[in-house]
Amino acid sequence: MKYESINFEDKFLKFSDHWSPRVIAAMNDYQFKVVKIKGNFVWHDHKDTDEVFIVLSGKMEIEFRDGKVEINSGEMFVVKKGIEHKPFAAEECKILIIEPCGVINTGEEKSSLTAENDKWI
Amino acid sequence: MKYESINFEDKFLKFSDHWSPRVIAAMNDYQFKVVKIKGNFVWHDHKDTDEVFIVLSGKMEIEFRDGKVEINSGEMFVVKKGIEHKPFAAEECKILIIEPCGVINTGEEKSSLTAENDKWI
Repeated sequence: MKYESINFEDKFLKFSDHWSPRVIAAMNDYQFKVVKIKGNFVWHDHKDTDEVFIVLSGKMEIEFRDGKVEINSGEMFVVKKGIEHKPFAAEECKILIIEPCGVINTGEEKSSLTAENDKWI
Repeated sequence: MKYESINFEDKFLKFSDHWSPRVIAAMNDYQFKVVKIKGNFVWHDHKDTDEVFIVLSGKMEIEFRDGKVEINSGEMFVVKKGIEHKPFAAEECKILIIEPCGVINTGEEKSSLTAENDKWI
């Protein structure tokens, strides 16, 4: 049988829009999504799940109501469930997000940035 | 409040042994573990869960009963549950493993490579 690894950079070559997650892999009922981000996202939370951010290139920030974190390439951060957060990147940043299937990127906040789910590449 | 990202390279500086996973983060009931690997691991499977490998530096292979996959830095692979596999790295390779809490690294195969769980760094 033919087994193939998943190359992050190859996946990023396939799209250019910001804040629009593409699913590249599934593990049990979780999904791995690559996203290009730039500028401000919206305040939101995820009531039922933690969310993992891994920065693959560039740097991003996540603002919280009581502080913020900078995440550089080669770093990760776990946003715990129910915590309001607002991602931001001054320059285009390429990230990997890990979360359960079905999670909406903007939480319960409907926004122009709310993305369609289950877009596999 | 003070929020801090998790830097993979900083974590790898804290240990040098091979095939001994260190937990660096938790997401819901899943754990993120960094591991340094070199040489041959043992054949094993995980009956109840998929397992994700992300190569952070170097390259590794995973052998299956009917083929194999090479995973380079910047790539990932999902071993589906119940599939027998044997990881291998010719030179030291630094990887991130994602799997549910409580998974034993050698599956049901007791081995000198069976590692203690929940070793946080």
